[in-house]
Amino acid sequence: MESKGNIVGIVGLGLIGGSMALKLKQSGFTATVIGTDASSLHAQKALELGIVDKVVAMARVLKQANVIVLAIPVDATKKQLPLVLDALGNKQVVLDVGSTKANIAEAVANHKNRAAYVACHPIAGTENTGPEAAFSDLFTNKVNIICDKQRSSTGALEKVLALTDHLGMRPKFMDSHDHDRHIAYVSHLSHISSFTLGQTVLEVEPSETTIFDMAGSGFESTVRLAKSSPAMWAPIFTENADNIIDVLSAYISNLEKYKAMIKNKNEEALREAMHQTNRIRKVLNDKNPNPNNQFPITNN
Amino acid sequence: MESKGNIVGIVGLGLIGGSMALKLKQSGFTATVIGTDASSLHAQKALELGIVDKVVAMARVLKQANVIVLAIPVDATKKQLPLVLDALGNKQVVLDVGSTKANIAEAVANHKNRAAYVACHPIAGTENTGPEAAFSDLFTNKVNIICDKQRSSTGALEKVLALTDHLGMRPKFMDSHDHDRHIAYVSHLSHISSFTLGQTVLEVEPSETTIFDMAGSGFESTVRLAKSSPAMWAPIFTENADNIIDVLSAYISNLEKYKAMIKNKNEEALREAMHQTNRIRKVLNDKNPNPNNQFPITNN
Repeated sequence: MESKGNIVGIVGLGLIGGSMALKLKQSGFTATVIGTDASSLHAQKALELGIVDKVVAMARVLKQANVIVLAIPVDATKKQLPLVLDALGNKQVVLDVGSTKANIAEAVANHKNRAAYVACHPIAGTENTGPEAAFSDLFTNKVNIICDKQRSSTGALEKVLALTDHLGMRPKFMDSHDHDRHIAYVSHLSHISSFTLGQTVLEVEPSETTIFDMAGSGFESTVRLAKSSPAMWAPIFTENADNIIDVLSAYISNLEKYKAMIKNKNEEALREAMHQTNRIRKVLNDKNPNPNNQFPITNN
Repeated sequence: MESKGNIVGIVGLGLIGGSMALKLKQSGFTATVIGTDASSLHAQKALELGIVDKVVAMARVLKQANVIVLAIPVDATKKQLPLVLDALGNKQVVLDVGSTKANIAEAVANHKNRAAYVACHPIAGTENTGPEAAFSDLFTNKVNIICDKQRSSTGALEKVLALTDHLGMRPKFMDSHDHDRHIAYVSHLSHISSFTLGQTVLEVEPSETTIFDMAGSGFESTVRLAKSSPAMWAPIFTENADNIIDVLSAYISNLEKYKAMIKNKNEEALREAMHQTNRIRKVLNDKNPNPNNQFPITNN
């Protein structure tokens, strides 16, 4: 796979774009990273932190980079991607990193340069944002989901697989609609449950000291995602609305069942429901399908 | 404060009781820890791990220890505490560590030895259980909530404050009913939201590998508490049922609001709701009231 002589252009120099820039240079995928950001403050900061070699205008990214990464909110990606594809030459590749895939796939489904685009969702992140939050190991041993690979050219796909490998990630191939349905459960629901948990506590707890003093009892980890960026998450929720509404209905229904069990003081049923869910421990700890071989390039 | 010559008797040699045993010995609060557990396997393990010096019958704990810690599920504490108080001499103190306080307070409200009991809730824990999960630093820099302190004798309270100090904890005084209302929001809701999140995902995701591969996207931390012990949590939920039902209703109502905002694709409202909740970052990170002086014995 080709990985010499790449010039990487990052559009959006936040946690994801910034971390990718750092790692792609460190791993030797590229010697030069250029970048752009809608916020000149972010761009300036990224330059100061050595995340990019040069901050340039979008037009220049499109002209100079052969690998272009869109690391911006999903609604912005939907708007920008067709324009990027308009400008692309036949040696260039563009990938995105968004948490919704079907809407973006649809926006470029009939574009003449569709094959130069590889739809990605690297499953990695923290609750922090901006170039200061970037770090080169964010992606290590994580999964990069690549959607609808049959719609990308062999050359574009190979380039992105090499990039995935240099990030220290395992690729996993999925259909974009399947991706959006699965991720609604495993990621988007977690964010909504955490945001509403934080909201509920803040609404009724007037004393911040009380929250702080009691937060050790599990609240701190369950509410972590409520620190996430509204600018990033609001578009994800609306772009994946249909799946998320299904998921929220299932979640609320389970909460109503707990409420009924508690109201009826049905300890036996509560114990059984919790016992069933304890199996998540096994799923999360013991199910690493590839503990000693994290970067197979072929995958189902 | 008296801390020499104590003999500590731990009833329930799990995560909390075991960790307390380790730390109270390490910190010099006691030279001798005896203990008992309903499970002879747990008791044997605790002995092997050096958590207790001796495993004895309950009757012997009551006879030999001057500081008795009930570290058992809240329903068991409610049953055992009156019997312990029946047997107590006037140099002995008993404390519990349960996550509900009003129900236990009520069970001993009119007991002739009520003053020998100090109602505690150390705000510390992990999702793991049993003596193997115990570690001496579990309580370091955390808060020990002491309820209804006016109902305890000065001697008993001083002994428990010394114990709190030796655990590396800060005491915080509360009314037991206030405790139960606050903790329903800050702890019990987190556990139910996490259990139902895990349940919802397990119900619809047939592939454990898919869950695992996507868990990096926030699921892992929000679902952590779903690994918790049903034997411990079922009684907490039913003993604090009234508060928890209020809390669950408020939580479900906020989830319904998110669902409506997503259905209406009201990004502006979503952004605003999330922005409001982002303030939890400040509450959790910046509100440590005592960063450099963690163990004042006097507190509000």
